[in-house]
Amino acid sequence: MNELTGRLVIQQCLSASLKLPGIEGREPELVEVRRGMVVFVCFLNQASEATVEKLVKHIIDIRLSENETSRRVSICDVQGDILIIPQATLGGKLKGKAMQYHNNVDKNVGEALYHKLCHGVRTAVEQVSSGNVKCGVYGARQILNMDTNGPFTHIIEV
Amino acid sequence: MNELTGRLVIQQCLSASLKLPGIEGREPELVEVRRGMVVFVCFLNQASEATVEKLVKHIIDIRLSENETSRRVSICDVQGDILIIPQATLGGKLKGKAMQYHNNVDKNVGEALYHKLCHGVRTAVEQVSSGNVKCGVYGARQILNMDTNGPFTHIIEV
Repeated sequence: MNELTGRLVIQQCLSASLKLPGIEGREPELVEVRRGMVVFVCFLNQASEATVEKLVKHIIDIRLSENETSRRVSICDVQGDILIIPQATLGGKLKGKAMQYHNNVDKNVGEALYHKLCHGVRTAVEQVSSGNVKCGVYGARQILNMDTNGPFTHIIEV
Repeated sequence: MNELTGRLVIQQCLSASLKLPGIEGREPELVEVRRGMVVFVCFLNQASEATVEKLVKHIIDIRLSENETSRRVSICDVQGDILIIPQATLGGKLKGKAMQYHNNVDKNVGEALYHKLCHGVRTAVEQVSSGNVKCGVYGARQILNMDTNGPFTHIIEV
């Protein structure tokens, strides 16, 4: 198996909100989504645009959303929302009692890839669905509230 | 590397609540925790009591909780609560556009290991901390609400 370059944790939500830090003295912004999924993303060493492309495809294609007949379909099939949250801690490796993050991509590279991922998902969703795609702020602490009807958590690695 | 036998997703929370299904006609029960962590757990093929022991140790020892000086310490060091949620979907593997769960442990074995894990964590916490340990119901859909001040998501595999 090749070295991992990206990791997602995906949780289904009924609604979610993310309070972004107030930048340059501005008021904190509240980003909200309705029913859909919350996607936590981390880029690892060697992550590239190819990593972003694969992750965009998985986020759009993966059949994790329940439709009205309880079948699992893609997020666009249910016109669901997507909240994409940068989550560098997903790259952590347990060493003794502490997590180490040596496998994480350089912060500037990670930020650029994160923006590409958000742009890629938004562009793909817009073509086929009325769902909203919302994003967080890379490298900042963000206050998340999430409501689920079964958290239904999945890990995707590429 | 040996085959994986257990997987955790750990998220820090300010508070969380889990609505358990009403069993045998009873009203749904609401399980609540205060500041601490939400632990999602999945047992994979070949999981055993050794897996449970390792996971209990990690949950108790791992330094993911922020103390008043912003240092990362163990959950017991901050007298934090723990909500342990069974989450078989963490064993999923992406195949094409769908998740497959062939690596998951047999349901009955998984349920027994889950109860051992909850018991083990509760016993360990009680000895050193006033924090509460709360659990979900294995194999049932549970309604989760979670509030965080930065979700701070980690994956632990054993």
